[in-house]
Amino acid sequence: MIRLSPAHATFTLTLSCPNRPGIVAGIGMKLYELGANITEAQQFDYAEEQRFFMRIVFDIPLSDAIEQTLSDAIAILSDEFAMEWTLTDMARPHKVLLMVSKFDHCLVDLLYRWRIGELAIEPVGIISNHPQDTYADIEFYGIPFHHLPITKDTKAEQEGRIWDIFQSSGAELMVLARYMQILSNEFSRKLAGRCINIHHSFLPGFKGARPYHQAFARGVKLIGATAHYVTSDLDEGPIIEQDVERISHADTPEDLIRKGRDIERRVLARAVRYHIERRALLNGNKTIVFSD
Amino acid sequence: MIRLSPAHATFTLTLSCPNRPGIVAGIGMKLYELGANITEAQQFDYAEEQRFFMRIVFDIPLSDAIEQTLSDAIAILSDEFAMEWTLTDMARPHKVLLMVSKFDHCLVDLLYRWRIGELAIEPVGIISNHPQDTYADIEFYGIPFHHLPITKDTKAEQEGRIWDIFQSSGAELMVLARYMQILSNEFSRKLAGRCINIHHSFLPGFKGARPYHQAFARGVKLIGATAHYVTSDLDEGPIIEQDVERISHADTPEDLIRKGRDIERRVLARAVRYHIERRALLNGNKTIVFSD
Amino acid sequence: MIRLSPAHATFTLTLSCPNRPGIVAGIGMKLYELGANITEAQQFDYAEEQRFFMRIVFDIPLSDAIEQTLSDAIAILSDEFAMEWTLTDMARPHKVLLMVSKFDHCLVDLLYRWRIGELAIEPVGIISNHPQDTYADIEFYGIPFHHLPITKDTKAEQEGRIWDIFQSSGAELMVLARYMQILSNEFSRKLAGRCINIHHSFLPGFKGARPYHQAFARGVKLIGATAHYVTSDLDEGPIIEQDVERISHADTPEDLIRKGRDIERRVLARAVRYHIERRALLNGNKTIVFSD
Amino acid sequence: MIRLSPAHATFTLTLSCPNRPGIVAGIGMKLYELGANITEAQQFDYAEEQRFFMRIVFDIPLSDAIEQTLSDAIAILSDEFAMEWTLTDMARPHKVLLMVSKFDHCLVDLLYRWRIGELAIEPVGIISNHPQDTYADIEFYGIPFHHLPITKDTKAEQEGRIWDIFQSSGAELMVLARYMQILSNEFSRKLAGRCINIHHSFLPGFKGARPYHQAFARGVKLIGATAHYVTSDLDEGPIIEQDVERISHADTPEDLIRKGRDIERRVLARAVRYHIERRALLNGNKTIVFSD
Repeated sequence: MIRLSPAHATFTLTLSCPNRPGIVAGIGMKLYELGANITEAQQFDYAEEQRFFMRIVFDIPLSDAIEQTLSDAIAILSDEFAMEWTLTDMARPHKVLLMVSKFDHCLVDLLYRWRIGELAIEPVGIISNHPQDTYADIEFYGIPFHHLPITKDTKAEQEGRIWDIFQSSGAELMVLARYMQILSNEFSRKLAGRCINIHHSFLPGFKGARPYHQAFARGVKLIGATAHYVTSDLDEGPIIEQDVERISHADTPEDLIRKGRDIERRVLARAVRYHIERRALLNGNKTIVFSD
Repeated sequence: MIRLSPAHATFTLTLSCPNRPGIVAGIGMKLYELGANITEAQQFDYAEEQRFFMRIVFDIPLSDAIEQTLSDAIAILSDEFAMEWTLTDMARPHKVLLMVSKFDHCLVDLLYRWRIGELAIEPVGIISNHPQDTYADIEFYGIPFHHLPITKDTKAEQEGRIWDIFQSSGAELMVLARYMQILSNEFSRKLAGRCINIHHSFLPGFKGARPYHQAFARGVKLIGATAHYVTSDLDEGPIIEQDVERISHADTPEDLIRKGRDIERRVLARAVRYHIERRALLNGNKTIVFSD
Repeated sequence: MIRLSPAHATFTLTLSCPNRPGIVAGIGMKLYELGANITEAQQFDYAEEQRFFMRIVFDIPLSDAIEQTLSDAIAILSDEFAMEWTLTDMARPHKVLLMVSKFDHCLVDLLYRWRIGELAIEPVGIISNHPQDTYADIEFYGIPFHHLPITKDTKAEQEGRIWDIFQSSGAELMVLARYMQILSNEFSRKLAGRCINIHHSFLPGFKGARPYHQAFARGVKLIGATAHYVTSDLDEGPIIEQDVERISHADTPEDLIRKGRDIERRVLARAVRYHIERRALLNGNKTIVFSD
Repeated sequence: MIRLSPAHATFTLTLSCPNRPGIVAGIGMKLYELGANITEAQQFDYAEEQRFFMRIVFDIPLSDAIEQTLSDAIAILSDEFAMEWTLTDMARPHKVLLMVSKFDHCLVDLLYRWRIGELAIEPVGIISNHPQDTYADIEFYGIPFHHLPITKDTKAEQEGRIWDIFQSSGAELMVLARYMQILSNEFSRKLAGRCINIHHSFLPGFKGARPYHQAFARGVKLIGATAHYVTSDLDEGPIIEQDVERISHADTPEDLIRKGRDIERRVLARAVRYHIERRALLNGNKTIVFSD
C-alpha cells in the first residue's frame, strides 16, 4: 500500500446512471459530509442515451473502516440514482495478468514501466503459448510464468487454465500484450471490461491477421495501433486508445512492423493506465476516457 | 440570440477561488435549487497555489430575469468562497474586434468560421495598419473597417483610437490575427485577458521578429505556432494553444511560412473558440484550458 | 508563365520503368549533355515489382524549342529503358476543374491558396450540383460556374457535360472538393490519374456515406481524412495523403464534422500540391509521394 | 557481418561538395561501371551555400577487395568534385559507446532495439557516473561497464578515460542516453559529428537544467525532446530529430517527466538510426536527414 500521506487515503469513485438533475449536488454533499476533499472530477452527459458518467478522485482522512464507510454511503446514493459504480483505493496497485506470444516489445515495455514505478500495477502472472526460454533475455523478477500452448483441440481446456490462474492470482485485469490467440466467445464474455488487447492497426481499418501487410498493400500514409476491451466480436471491442505515425511509400512491411512497435507499446501502456486509474469507463460498445 | 430551445437558456459559469472542501457541493446544490441541469463540468485543483478552478455549463428554464437571478445567487456563493467568476449566456455571440496587418490568412479563416456558424462570434470591427484596398479580395460583409496606420510618433494616439473603437463597438475580445504592431505596455494592460495574439513560432522558441527565418537558421525539425493572451511582456503572455508540423532540411524559409500559415490559422481559431466558450481561464502567467 | 529567371526554365521529369542498372547514370548524363542543372532528384525502387520510379527537377537555359528538345531527348531514353514519363514546365500553372456540393470549405480553401499564390493552379471552372446562389458568399473571381444538378436519370447526360467542360476548358486535373455525387465507373476510368477526391474518413475505415457518424458510432479516438485518386472502385483509389486529429468521447457527430473540416481542407490542399508538382506518382493501386 | 546475399555487398555512400552540373551523372556512371545497382538515392541542393549533398545505397557483387576498389574509384571522383565523403559497409554493425546517468529509460530502450535486431549497432561499452548496481535490474549481456564518477576536479581526467575507452573499444559513435554531465569544450570538439545527445525539451526552448520544470512554469501546451550532435555550445548542436506530445494544465512536472520519457526514447532511437544508416549529414550547424 502506497499512501502519499499516512493520515489520508485517496479513492477514485466512478459511476454511471440515468441523467437527471441533482446527481452532482447529491454526490458532492455526501462526500463533503464524509470529510472528503475532491481533487479531480470529470463528468460526461451522454445525451443520446440520457446517461450520466462521472469520475471523482478524493482524499479522505484514514480510519479503520474507511472503505466500508464509503461503500455504505455510496450504496445509499446508488439506490437513489440507480447508479453503477466502482470505488478504488488508489494506494493499492492493480493486479494484472500479462498474456504474450512471440513478440515481446509490449510485455517488456509494461514490465519496465512497472519496475520504475510509472504504472501502478502488480503483475501476478505471465502466460504465453510459447515456452519460457523464448523470453530468456527478459528479467521476470519472479513473476510466475505459465506456458500454455494452444491448439484447436486444447483451446477450451487451456482457457480453463487461464481462467483458473486469473482467479487464483487475484488478477483484476488481463492484458493481451501481443497475445496472438483469439479468445473464445465464452471466455471473452467472462472477461468483459477487464481484458485489454492491443491490435496492431488503426481500427476499424485492417482487422484480423497481418494488419501491417494489409496496410502496405492498401498504400495508407499513416499506420496506427488500437487498444480496446476484448469482446466476443473480434477487433470490435470498445476502443480505449489509438495513435498513429506517418509512413511513406518507401516503407516495406518490415518497416511498418518496426514503426508499429513504438505505437503499439505506447498505446497499450496508456490504455492500461487509463484502466487502472479508472479513467476508462464502458459506455455500450464505446468508452469514455477521462484523460489527463 | 440563438436558443436551442425556446424554453431553456444555456449558461456557462467559470470560477476560481482558494481551494477548500465543499465548493463543488455548494455550487451543485445552488444550481440544483435554481432548477439548472448541469451538462458539462470541469474542474482543476492547482495544488501549487491551493487554488480551485471550475467551468460549468448548465441548462435552465427561461424566465424574464434569469440572468439576474443567477448572478444574484452566484454572488452569494462568491462571497462565501471568495470566488472570481464569470457567467455567460451561450446564446449570445461574443463581440470580437479583429486586428490585421498585411497577411490575411488568419483573418480570412476567422471570417469563414464565423460565416458558416462554426465560431459563435460577432465581428464588430476590423482594424488594420494597412489601407482597406489591401483586402480587396476579401468579403467583409459590412463589418466596419478602420485604417489606423501606426508610426513611432502616432502609436499612443492610434492606440487611443483602437481603444475607443473597442469600447464603442462593445467588443469583448480583441484578436490580433497576424497584426504586426507591438501593443504598448499600457494598452496591453488595459486589454489583459481579453486580447489574443497568434505568434508564428512554437514559444518560447523564436520570440520576436521573423521566427520562421530563425527556425530555418536553427535547423529545427518541427515548426509551430502559439496563441496567447497579450501581456506587456512581448511573446511571454499566457499560452492558450500551440501546435506543430514536421518540416525537413529541404524546406526553405518560404516553405516554412507556407506550412506555418496552416498551423497559425487552426491554432488561433482554437484559441478564440476556447476563449468564447469560456474554456480558457487565466491562472497567473499560464492558462487552464478545459478543452473538449 | 512565371519564370524565376528570364534566362532559365525549370522542368520536372517523372518516370517509371522496369528496374535495371544504368538508369540514373543514363538520365544524369543526358540531362548534363543538354545543359541542365538538377536541383531535386528523388527515386524509389519498388522491389516487389522490380519497378523504378524517379522525379527530377532541373533548370535549363531557355531557348525557343526547349520543351521539344527535351521531349525528343527523353523519348530516346524512354525507348531504351521502356519508360513511362511526364515532362512538366513548372512556370505553367496547372489547369484545374473544381467540383463541389453543399459544403464549401475545401473549395474556399483551394481558392484562397490559389489567390495568394500558394498553389500553382489555374481554376478553369467550378461545377456544382447546387445552384450558384448556394455560394453567394464566395468570390469566384470570374471563374466560370456551371450548375449541373444530377438525378439518377440524368447522371450519364450530366457526366457527359462535365466531360465536355473538362475537355473544352483544357483542364488537366479534376478536384472533387467535397463533391457528393459518385462518378460512374466509366467516367472514373476516363479521369484515371487526373481526378482527386477528398473522403472525410481515415480510409480504409468508414467508407461510404456519413463517415463521421460512423466514426462516432464506433467510438474511435482519432478521426481523419483521405485524398485519393478516383477509380471506379468507390473509396478504394490510390491514396495520396491522409491526416488525423484526436477526438474524445465528448465530441458529438457535429463536433467531428467541425474538426474534420480542418483535416479535409489541409489534406486535399496537400494532395493537389503533390499532384501539380508531380510529386505523386501512380504505382498500381498505390501512390509514390516524393514529399518535400 | 550480416549479408543479405552471400554474393552481394550493400554500401552507403554519402558525400557533399560544391554544387555544379555533372555530379549526379559522374557518380551514376562510375557506380554503373563498377557493376553497382543503386537501390536508394537522395540528394539535397543547399541553395544558400551552393553546396550539394547526396546519399546513395547500392548493391555490388562481393569480391575480395571490393571496399578498397570502391574507395579508390570514389577518391578519383572526390578529387574532381572536391567532395567530402563516407563509404559504409551496411553489413557491419556500428560500434557504439553508451553513456548514462541515473535515468535508464533511453539506455534500456536502445539495448532492447539492439537485442531484437532493430538497430544495427554493436554496443562496445557502457559508461556511467553512477555505480553499476544502479542498473541492477538491467541485463547488460556482457557489455563492458565503466563507472566513471565525475567531480569538478576530476572532469578532465575522467574525460581522458572516456576518450581512451572510446578509442580502444573502436567506438564510432558515442550516445549520451540521458548522461547528465556536460562535456568540456575540448572533448566536445574531439567527438564532433560522432556524439549524439538527447535533450529533454523541444529546443531551442528550455535549454539547460530541469527543462520539464521550465516547461511547466511557462505553461506550454506541448512538450518535446531533441536529439542533436554535441558541440561545445551547450544544447546548440545540430538537431537530428525532434518530437512532441500534447500536455494539459493538469499535468504536474512529474507528469511531464513521465510523458517525456516516451518522447525521449523514440527521438533518440530515431536519431541513432539516422546516424548509423548514414541518413544524417552535417551541414554547418544544421543537419540534413534523408529520412525513410
